[in-house]
Amino acid sequence: MLEQVRALTFDVFGTVVDWRGSVIREGEALGRARGWDTDWASFADDWRRDGYIGGMRRVRDGELPWMTVDALHRRKLDGLLDERGLTGLDEDATAQFNRAWHRLDPWTDVPEGLARLRSRFVVSTLSNGNVALLIDLARHGGLTWDCVLSAEITGAFKPDPACYTRAAELLGLAPEQVLMVAAHPADLRAAAAVGFRTAYLRRPLEWGPAGTTGKDAGTEFDLVEDSLVAIAKRLGC
Amino acid sequence: MLEQVRALTFDVFGTVVDWRGSVIREGEALGRARGWDTDWASFADDWRRDGYIGGMRRVRDGELPWMTVDALHRRKLDGLLDERGLTGLDEDATAQFNRAWHRLDPWTDVPEGLARLRSRFVVSTLSNGNVALLIDLARHGGLTWDCVLSAEITGAFKPDPACYTRAAELLGLAPEQVLMVAAHPADLRAAAAVGFRTAYLRRPLEWGPAGTTGKDAGTEFDLVEDSLVAIAKRLGC
Repeated sequence: MLEQVRALTFDVFGTVVDWRGSVIREGEALGRARGWDTDWASFADDWRRDGYIGGMRRVRDGELPWMTVDALHRRKLDGLLDERGLTGLDEDATAQFNRAWHRLDPWTDVPEGLARLRSRFVVSTLSNGNVALLIDLARHGGLTWDCVLSAEITGAFKPDPACYTRAAELLGLAPEQVLMVAAHPADLRAAAAVGFRTAYLRRPLEWGPAGTTGKDAGTEFDLVEDSLVAIAKRLGC
Repeated sequence: MLEQVRALTFDVFGTVVDWRGSVIREGEALGRARGWDTDWASFADDWRRDGYIGGMRRVRDGELPWMTVDALHRRKLDGLLDERGLTGLDEDATAQFNRAWHRLDPWTDVPEGLARLRSRFVVSTLSNGNVALLIDLARHGGLTWDCVLSAEITGAFKPDPACYTRAAELLGLAPEQVLMVAAHPADLRAAAAVGFRTAYLRRPLEWGPAGTTGKDAGTEFDLVEDSLVAIAKRLGC
């Protein structure tokens, strides 16, 4: 089933990087500096749920025009600061805080897992994050990709099938030669629907200790593992 | 003039890699194995001039539909083998020879120059080569890019202005924050026309010792140097 695989494409937020822990840390540091009192865990969750996930849904539904994830994050950030009465950030400081999403730390298993995989396979992002954001994340985390593919290149967000078919085309491969790695079953199902192979990398802490994701058995996928190093080993790296 | 620069975009064929020397070596090895007698220098030059440069012109002029550089190379290769009476290659061997363009060696100054530049700047390809070809070249030459941008992503070949404006957009930068590095004045002029900064990296040996390119003074460009290490040093890297 996996012998044909030549490249791996990676979901990034939640799969490669721990967005929640990183955003909470940035919020806490900013809150201390500004004397703000708010719950940064729920701030991060709201930012993610309504800004990113909800924002992409509105773009897909035609309620919003196409915009980058940076722009979706900023829309929600402005609303969140206002709702919570967190005032006093000027434009530069707000833009800087919005770029917290460019400074997310990788999960601890990622540097080794990715380096192992890259020794034998082409490795690329395939994220809804915009290209500039993905470049910054890689530099921040010391990660080396062979290629940075993004929904921004296709002009449609995952799980639009065009994201996956365009990625395979740009990699010069048939869909069955590409293994999608993600912590999200819906992403993997959409990749599988166009012929990709699938690796479910479970991240039960993506939404924090009380989160309910990352617990599926994942029996429908080609691989199910709890670390990228384990996936690398399964592929002989 | 260059203080605003945050990213460098690179032409690849001729600027980063020595296509001619590499293709001649592949041809000579194949010729020895097959007992073929032909002049591989003129073979390489014809392949480049009519297959790549002429092929892209025909795509731009609408004589040919959009196709990747791999496909343009293959069209010309079939013609060249036929014209020169070089027979006996089956489909696999022909495809393998066509991929000589995926195995081009970098010029000797590139690994150090690129690593220096990447320590302070985002570095990306901006090539007419297709993405899969550019990935293979980077892996072959041990080069690390932050991003692989290609005319294939825009659907138009350089010097179409869309290639440059789309690259700046994907990098999240204004055109004047991007420095185009190329051995070809026409590429640099097209980049400058949309607001990029320009670095002329002279490669007088691109077309061999008898070549006439790479000798312009380049006074219209922001930088003119004979090695990538020299460009890195000019930028404080």
